[in-house]
Amino acid sequence: MTITGNQFIGAREMRGQEAPFHGVDPSTGEQLAPAFSGAGKAEVALACALAAQAFGDYRHTTLEQRAAFLERIAHNILELGDALIENAMRESGLPRARLEGERGRTVGQLRLFSALVRSGEWQGIRHDPALPERKPLPRSDLRLRHIGIGPVAVFGASNFPLAFSVAGGDTASALAAGCPVVLKAHPAHPATSELVGRAVRQAVADCALHEGVFSMLAGASIELGGALVADPRIKAVGFTGSRGGGMALMRIAASRPEPIPVFAEMSSINPMFLLPAALAARAESIGQGFVASLTMGSGQFCTNPGLVLAIDGPGFDAFMAAASNAVQAAPASTMLTPAIHGIYTAQTEKLARHGALRQIARGQPAQGPHQCQAALMLVESHDFLADPVWHNEVFGASSVVVRCPDLATVEQVLGHLEGQLTATLQMDEADLPLARRLLPQLEEKVGRILVNGYPTGVEVASAMVHGGPFPATSDARMTSVGTLAITRFLRPVCYQDFPDALLPGPLQDQALNA
Amino acid sequence: MTITGNQFIGAREMRGQEAPFHGVDPSTGEQLAPAFSGAGKAEVALACALAAQAFGDYRHTTLEQRAAFLERIAHNILELGDALIENAMRESGLPRARLEGERGRTVGQLRLFSALVRSGEWQGIRHDPALPERKPLPRSDLRLRHIGIGPVAVFGASNFPLAFSVAGGDTASALAAGCPVVLKAHPAHPATSELVGRAVRQAVADCALHEGVFSMLAGASIELGGALVADPRIKAVGFTGSRGGGMALMRIAASRPEPIPVFAEMSSINPMFLLPAALAARAESIGQGFVASLTMGSGQFCTNPGLVLAIDGPGFDAFMAAASNAVQAAPASTMLTPAIHGIYTAQTEKLARHGALRQIARGQPAQGPHQCQAALMLVESHDFLADPVWHNEVFGASSVVVRCPDLATVEQVLGHLEGQLTATLQMDEADLPLARRLLPQLEEKVGRILVNGYPTGVEVASAMVHGGPFPATSDARMTSVGTLAITRFLRPVCYQDFPDALLPGPLQDQALNA
Repeated sequence: MTITGNQFIGAREMRGQEAPFHGVDPSTGEQLAPAFSGAGKAEVALACALAAQAFGDYRHTTLEQRAAFLERIAHNILELGDALIENAMRESGLPRARLEGERGRTVGQLRLFSALVRSGEWQGIRHDPALPERKPLPRSDLRLRHIGIGPVAVFGASNFPLAFSVAGGDTASALAAGCPVVLKAHPAHPATSELVGRAVRQAVADCALHEGVFSMLAGASIELGGALVADPRIKAVGFTGSRGGGMALMRIAASRPEPIPVFAEMSSINPMFLLPAALAARAESIGQGFVASLTMGSGQFCTNPGLVLAIDGPGFDAFMAAASNAVQAAPASTMLTPAIHGIYTAQTEKLARHGALRQIARGQPAQGPHQCQAALMLVESHDFLADPVWHNEVFGASSVVVRCPDLATVEQVLGHLEGQLTATLQMDEADLPLARRLLPQLEEKVGRILVNGYPTGVEVASAMVHGGPFPATSDARMTSVGTLAITRFLRPVCYQDFPDALLPGPLQDQALNA
Repeated sequence: MTITGNQFIGAREMRGQEAPFHGVDPSTGEQLAPAFSGAGKAEVALACALAAQAFGDYRHTTLEQRAAFLERIAHNILELGDALIENAMRESGLPRARLEGERGRTVGQLRLFSALVRSGEWQGIRHDPALPERKPLPRSDLRLRHIGIGPVAVFGASNFPLAFSVAGGDTASALAAGCPVVLKAHPAHPATSELVGRAVRQAVADCALHEGVFSMLAGASIELGGALVADPRIKAVGFTGSRGGGMALMRIAASRPEPIPVFAEMSSINPMFLLPAALAARAESIGQGFVASLTMGSGQFCTNPGLVLAIDGPGFDAFMAAASNAVQAAPASTMLTPAIHGIYTAQTEKLARHGALRQIARGQPAQGPHQCQAALMLVESHDFLADPVWHNEVFGASSVVVRCPDLATVEQVLGHLEGQLTATLQMDEADLPLARRLLPQLEEKVGRILVNGYPTGVEVASAMVHGGPFPATSDARMTSVGTLAITRFLRPVCYQDFPDALLPGPLQDQALNA
């Protein structure tokens, strides 16, 4: 399968008119062939015009048509075969097993949204029958359903080149909602994006949908994403990435003549709480499990456990020893991009120079370029409370353990944290009263609370929340993973006193009484 | 019941430290006693601190406690008796029957949200049971519920001194969601606000809730609202008012260190479409019904029909004649405030001077100060398309009829309109094909579509949508009327692998299996 470096504007392929760019193999630092053309305002305008044209047709597809389309995308991705995995490995530095697993997750996600579409539940149908005899005024017949919000701009994320990228959760949920997608490919994996983009386009053609249902723009400039969010035909934005990037898109969206919602998943340090009985009972296994979660995928997960709040006492030293040993044994592994590696190195070095922080362990030294050498640090709670530097996400396998003298201090530290995607409690039966004390604050601060697990590994399911108060996301009321993610791209419409023949099918008497 | 002009900070009453102000009787232009103290940043800080303190307690109330609280507010409002109606009449210029009806609606709305709370449905509970045997990886047990987002700032609206004000839909839905409310009273009806605010506070005390569940600030300065939205403890905003006001709050909210959602209902001209068969069959009754809707409450409704798109042909002249007669017969009526009357007069005079517009009728001349003299104008579709001035809402009984030669022109005009709260089709059986052609565009542009009714009179029900694409509202995905309004103030939390004893009650096995 030849990689062309073209832009996909509906069914057309073209060269972008802006500066070309290359993928990079982070394990060598070498530029990869071919050169990718760079898209700019001209290509944004073309893609968005097509998306706006497609919206009317696409949102009127039947549940079955739309479900089949999502399944077809999944099928076409699998049809790409090993070329997809090989390109993704080369561009991301991630190992084969991880990418094969991620492909399974991506395909499973598309199928889950396909089943959701087919169920029709997402339409959120409501009916208040007329009450013609009501006094003092009769009530009209009111029927409600949800429809897609319009064309959605989706930004591919670097850290999941399949599951949060071209055909990832944002794309799947927007397409499920009936919204055309204009995808901004992440420049860190352009060949992977092109392959998946081709699979989606092929599905559009296979299902005889309007070509504007999906376009994909590639480019390395910051202006490209800004132009896409500013385009008046775009009605919502899905983004996973850095806090700076997400905030920039939020500002652009808020200053449009017609402001639009941005669903940005940005930043989280995912605190883990070690409660005394758990620590006393199984400090060693917690230390090992924690480091396995911390170092997985070079720590490049949104839900990477970057902060541990531990109550000092029996087991604390054993936990630190086990975690320290596990970190020291952790092999260095290639990070996603040279830039991400550079930032990781600078951040961990800055933390190491901090007077209040003790470096406990580093992982195995790098054997090649751009490798993440895991880092584990310790800080006393009073020092943590004195300096907000700890609140910044370090993207990569780096975690800070905060030693707290008691639960009250843990609560105090928790009170100082920003919003988070997840929090994890390591607890035993005897810790229940302590966990109960923490729970209210946790609920107000995070989107997902885990007991005796590890936050990495986000299940794509109906009850999942991958979201949380700012700055974890831009809108704590939403999730970007799981079936609830579809609500980001839906809006309600009410039909009052419609003759049955004019009502949309799902709201007609026959459908409501079925 | 003495009106004090005090600020209500939780259970405390105090004078605000900013410039005092007075209510005004718009029917005379006279200042009303007493002087109201003006709240500023100091009072905002006190009220928001209390609201933040109250949040934890309040959101943990049982369904029954919270439902009883909402009922108690309704009860206490009724207990205010005629003093409430008299103050509201004096401050708003609205007639008794209208305000008595609005009180009924306000009380009914509180009771509806009470029933919603009791049902528990708003929690949106989801459960994905653990799949320990799943390959390659087991699935954790995942349970989801929604909780309140945190303290909400609610802005009382001028045009519904009861139903969209102190204890209106925003307050009812926020309290139902478990969110404390800091209310900014509208300076146009301060005594009415104080009475209702007192009823709410009394309900807080009656139900032994944390005093911070409700505070009310009054003031005539723009800075007061800005300070409230900027306060870091406020997590969402409900607003009904002008486009300028809503946009200003959106900007403040978006530029906070932690941006928050603003649910602003701002501006709509509510197009009515007159299709040929309906016009041929019953032009006269449509003309009369339209003007009754237009002039109701001096046209001071968000859903006032400010634009009519009519297809020229049999019945058009009869419609215009009937509407003209009805407008001419319409008595002038006092508007809500001298300022609203001033803007209405300036806008209608500006339209009347427009070369392309023909003034068809004016209502009865004013018999006193600040009265709205209804206005009906006619413009040809090509002139309408040439000038965006028509798209601005004129707040008051003023409507423009656009004469269109055919349905294609109607579609073109519709394509140029901004987002709307409502659209209304006047149609008969034979108009069905035309209505079907318009429907897709209508769905994409408005929140509620009516057939053979009139847009004023918004039912508070489960299938109501009082929302719509920008600038009708700031977030087309939401409604500010009806039970769905509660979703604005809720966010999901996921509980992963929780021991049953730590789960919130509604997620425990016993509750899920009930």
